[in-house]
Amino acid sequence: MAAARRDGRWIGFVPTMGALHVAHISLIEAAKRDDTFVVVSIFVNPTQFGPNEDFKNYPRDETADLVTCRRANVDLVFIPPVEEMYPPESATAVHVSRLTETLCGVGRPGHFDGVTTVVTKLLNIVQPDSAYFGQKDAQQLAVIRRMVRDLNMPIEILDCPTVREADGLAVSSRNVCLNKSQREQATCLYRALNEAKTLIKSGQTDGVAVVDAMRQIIEDADQTSIEYISVVDPASMQPVKRIERRVLIALAARIGKTRLIDNLQVDPRSRLG
Amino acid sequence: MAAARRDGRWIGFVPTMGALHVAHISLIEAAKRDDTFVVVSIFVNPTQFGPNEDFKNYPRDETADLVTCRRANVDLVFIPPVEEMYPPESATAVHVSRLTETLCGVGRPGHFDGVTTVVTKLLNIVQPDSAYFGQKDAQQLAVIRRMVRDLNMPIEILDCPTVREADGLAVSSRNVCLNKSQREQATCLYRALNEAKTLIKSGQTDGVAVVDAMRQIIEDADQTSIEYISVVDPASMQPVKRIERRVLIALAARIGKTRLIDNLQVDPRSRLG
Repeated sequence: MAAARRDGRWIGFVPTMGALHVAHISLIEAAKRDDTFVVVSIFVNPTQFGPNEDFKNYPRDETADLVTCRRANVDLVFIPPVEEMYPPESATAVHVSRLTETLCGVGRPGHFDGVTTVVTKLLNIVQPDSAYFGQKDAQQLAVIRRMVRDLNMPIEILDCPTVREADGLAVSSRNVCLNKSQREQATCLYRALNEAKTLIKSGQTDGVAVVDAMRQIIEDADQTSIEYISVVDPASMQPVKRIERRVLIALAARIGKTRLIDNLQVDPRSRLG
Repeated sequence: MAAARRDGRWIGFVPTMGALHVAHISLIEAAKRDDTFVVVSIFVNPTQFGPNEDFKNYPRDETADLVTCRRANVDLVFIPPVEEMYPPESATAVHVSRLTETLCGVGRPGHFDGVTTVVTKLLNIVQPDSAYFGQKDAQQLAVIRRMVRDLNMPIEILDCPTVREADGLAVSSRNVCLNKSQREQATCLYRALNEAKTLIKSGQTDGVAVVDAMRQIIEDADQTSIEYISVVDPASMQPVKRIERRVLIALAARIGKTRLIDNLQVDPRSRLG
């Protein structure tokens, strides 16, 4: 990497928790298109999982991930051991307030501190010019953008569209945890998001009405339990009551025991997105 | 600076709150000796002052500071405005736990969060190879070292000895706040530290006995009130009961209304420091 830097190459960074899938590959391809020296990190970060969450059972397949990276022409893969990232004496955390207090921040206290701290560490280790994140983790993306701006990190944060299966389910490492019937039910999330979009595009400005319609669709599916459905400002992540400009519709739900999130941005004033 | 970097110069950084004095100059000279392109920042950081502290009255003299920097052959002076460092939407803080919970951390809640956050910002803006801090702010130095290590910042933290007046008083921007009689009384701080050193060197291993002897000296002086006197581990800042290896003797006291801090490292096993 030092050589790439000396040669004036830009460094593009794709931080991941492994279990790489087509959505990760789309991030790698975006970094490739930007003609960067592409670094992928694989690190299942313990500090962003709560005590009752799925850190132990989070899908891991390092061998397959390395094959994926090779095929995608990744230039460097960084797989740090947990004890090197968090020696016992470490005592520092990066905290973003406000943006982290809604949506996933409510049900996963401490989650975003884990994310912002590990991303800061990884960015300082890799020292990329640009880093690539998926729009699927919309709140994470907003929090990281805020952090990078607030801490004056000399890095461009780029986002890539959510990659979806043919039936609309957002690609996620956790999708492998769904059994066949759960996988079928899981399409309700994207259907609910699309219903929200349809309502807003046809003039519905009442956030509560939009959420209610979405709730109906998800509750009608089997084995689902909703954690949240919210209409928020895409930058501040604060709830929006009257939908008059671009909003983020975000949701988290369990299908069986598997927690999935998804979101869609909708602008009532635009004929497109 | 971009040119200096292109020329392969190392960047040496001296972050200050201005009101520059000989101790700051000693940091600048250290950076010069290391043959770096020397950047000095002048920023009285509001977030490291408590609501009842002396942010408003902290000594400021930008004109004199610029003259001092010119005379010391500083290559670049960075004086950011407060509103650029902290736009209203900023929401990110860097927090170091444990090390910040003793000594000055007790009487100044939030102080070190202000320090670590602004230092992170300044380090990301300046992107130095090395940054220089005074040993006088021993806890700040330990906290920043911890932070830089924990967050994997690619920067060397270097420390310089406390600069003292002829009578031993540690040089500080706040010394100008002392009137003549307070200035005389203020020497009790260094006398107390020296008494601690003498006691430890002559075999005293009881931290409480050392602190008591120091307390006596400071209380015997007029217009003094002690905030803390502690014997701590120089890396962890945690109290030490039995003095068997190198310790940091640290104190904070008010002389009149002016809060001063000072410290000394003592190693009972060494014939030197």
